[in-house]
Amino acid sequence: MGNSRRLEPINDLVERALNGDRRSLSRLISRVENGGPDSWGALSTIYPRTGRARIIGVTGAPGTGKSTLVGEIAKFSRKNQPDQKVGIVAVDPTSPFSGGAVLGDRIRMRDLSGDEGVFIRSMATRGSLGGLARATTDVVKVLDACGYDLILIETVGAGQSEIDIARTADTVIVVEAPGLGDEVQAIKAGILEIADVLCVNKADRDGVQSTINALHAMLDLGTAAKGTLHHGVLMAASAPSATSAERWRPPIVKTIAAEGKGIDELMAAVEQHQAYLTAHPDGQQRARLRAAIELETVLREALLNRLLASVGAGRVDRAIEQIAARTIDPYTAAEQLLRWP
Amino acid sequence: MGNSRRLEPINDLVERALNGDRRSLSRLISRVENGGPDSWGALSTIYPRTGRARIIGVTGAPGTGKSTLVGEIAKFSRKNQPDQKVGIVAVDPTSPFSGGAVLGDRIRMRDLSGDEGVFIRSMATRGSLGGLARATTDVVKVLDACGYDLILIETVGAGQSEIDIARTADTVIVVEAPGLGDEVQAIKAGILEIADVLCVNKADRDGVQSTINALHAMLDLGTAAKGTLHHGVLMAASAPSATSAERWRPPIVKTIAAEGKGIDELMAAVEQHQAYLTAHPDGQQRARLRAAIELETVLREALLNRLLASVGAGRVDRAIEQIAARTIDPYTAAEQLLRWP
Repeated sequence: MGNSRRLEPINDLVERALNGDRRSLSRLISRVENGGPDSWGALSTIYPRTGRARIIGVTGAPGTGKSTLVGEIAKFSRKNQPDQKVGIVAVDPTSPFSGGAVLGDRIRMRDLSGDEGVFIRSMATRGSLGGLARATTDVVKVLDACGYDLILIETVGAGQSEIDIARTADTVIVVEAPGLGDEVQAIKAGILEIADVLCVNKADRDGVQSTINALHAMLDLGTAAKGTLHHGVLMAASAPSATSAERWRPPIVKTIAAEGKGIDELMAAVEQHQAYLTAHPDGQQRARLRAAIELETVLREALLNRLLASVGAGRVDRAIEQIAARTIDPYTAAEQLLRWP
Repeated sequence: MGNSRRLEPINDLVERALNGDRRSLSRLISRVENGGPDSWGALSTIYPRTGRARIIGVTGAPGTGKSTLVGEIAKFSRKNQPDQKVGIVAVDPTSPFSGGAVLGDRIRMRDLSGDEGVFIRSMATRGSLGGLARATTDVVKVLDACGYDLILIETVGAGQSEIDIARTADTVIVVEAPGLGDEVQAIKAGILEIADVLCVNKADRDGVQSTINALHAMLDLGTAAKGTLHHGVLMAASAPSATSAERWRPPIVKTIAAEGKGIDELMAAVEQHQAYLTAHPDGQQRARLRAAIELETVLREALLNRLLASVGAGRVDRAIEQIAARTIDPYTAAEQLLRWP
């Protein structure tokens, strides 16, 4: 209050961002990305305004064209519902939205970035071990509170934390493409289980039907395996869901995102899934799972930062030196730090 | 002591595993994978015996053939140094070693699994947010202590935690292959920075030279970017390394793993890198970084488990229900749990 720090008070940023100021929104997102108590306060403030956006996760192997698909979903939504704002959060290091793009990708997304109703944010992929997941769900909350009606989270469909990020969405689209190798990538990477909608993109390529057949075969097998996915430490304590007789079977939709084809059917499948979640107990179970993942990511980050603050960087540094010199093992070093003070 | 629990005392397992009993080694690894105080004790016990193995991380996009390469490195080492045992730890969900294999992959690795001097372990990829990284480094330590001279860690080269896992190795081989898409995958995924040796596999394919050229171009640019990789919360406090005048430039080696070609040159490059680490300050910095990552993963897991134990599953469940019902935000819920008791 009244002191002239270089950082603006976060509450001012919150106020202006909620009023629609894009620059303040950008700055608020950066602050939230960095985390810390200041950021927690802001997130608690905006929390009552969240929960209105539809959140779609889009995930798949590199080369499936999911960035193009994300761009097309955004355009489709803007065209059909011009009063609805779209946020894009790119966690995928191969995405044109997050800086890994080749020139063609950048050209394709240029008309999007000129649209005031679209806000694009790429997440740094350098955060370590869970920090990225926490930051991503927080940024989604900020966009949600600031009136973005549709939020698209793009993650690369490999890597545990990236899969966990996708799972915080209401609906997860897993993107596949024919001819990426010997095998359907989604199957090999084990991300089929988190799919609510399967999208076979680049459907003008050879081998599209065999990709679709392989996905159907896996879905036929997969119902038995459903629910075996690890739900984090916290969710393990929670009660399992009642098995509903009519489970959702992910529909398979063909698209050619580079030509804008099939996006309408894809979004219709997303709508159907969201109607299903509203009507079935699975929807509540999903909300609980998401809550557990969110709580766990917040706790993990908070616990480590709290320990660091109480122990001090000097002690941590000495522990690191000792472990590196092999004069102590990491477990004993951790125990010593945990006993401090 | 003396009570007949179903689980064997972990110290018995440790003793038998250290004496070369494979079944006990398997069981010990499962126990260590699950974590917990019991596992910490075992790891502290074996720690003085670790630090002898050479640890090689092999990472790259799906489709680069890195599993085949890992198998060939193991065969090469067994053939040239029959007294040296080889451990393979597969964290990659697309690896034949970790269960995602097609038939051809399985046939290729069959002669390996008949070799008593090779121990293969696939890690469950279902662990959440850091648990997998902790479990993997722990399993590597067990193999190291049990006399495995060469340990190969295979991870898919995308996803932050998977990249962190690869970085715990002495030498990281990043595998690339021509013709996987428009772009060199290693560049797009941002994993070039962790490469100590670059391997262009499937070098009988078209486009191998342009892949090599692209990698060289990136290396020329990349020296400036070196060191920008996030090193975790703990390492951030630590002093940066002195910039050495002669930095290691990752050599680029061509292989055709499916035909066993180029493995000798690849391993020669690995040897050179290990000689470099021994002779240069970078080696010490690397050891510190690895120590920091190890300490951080152990602390993260321990802190959450300790909190869970003190707070109780009931309170956590209620917090999850409240977050799911949107009657509380995750930050406030976390703060309440952290204040307990």
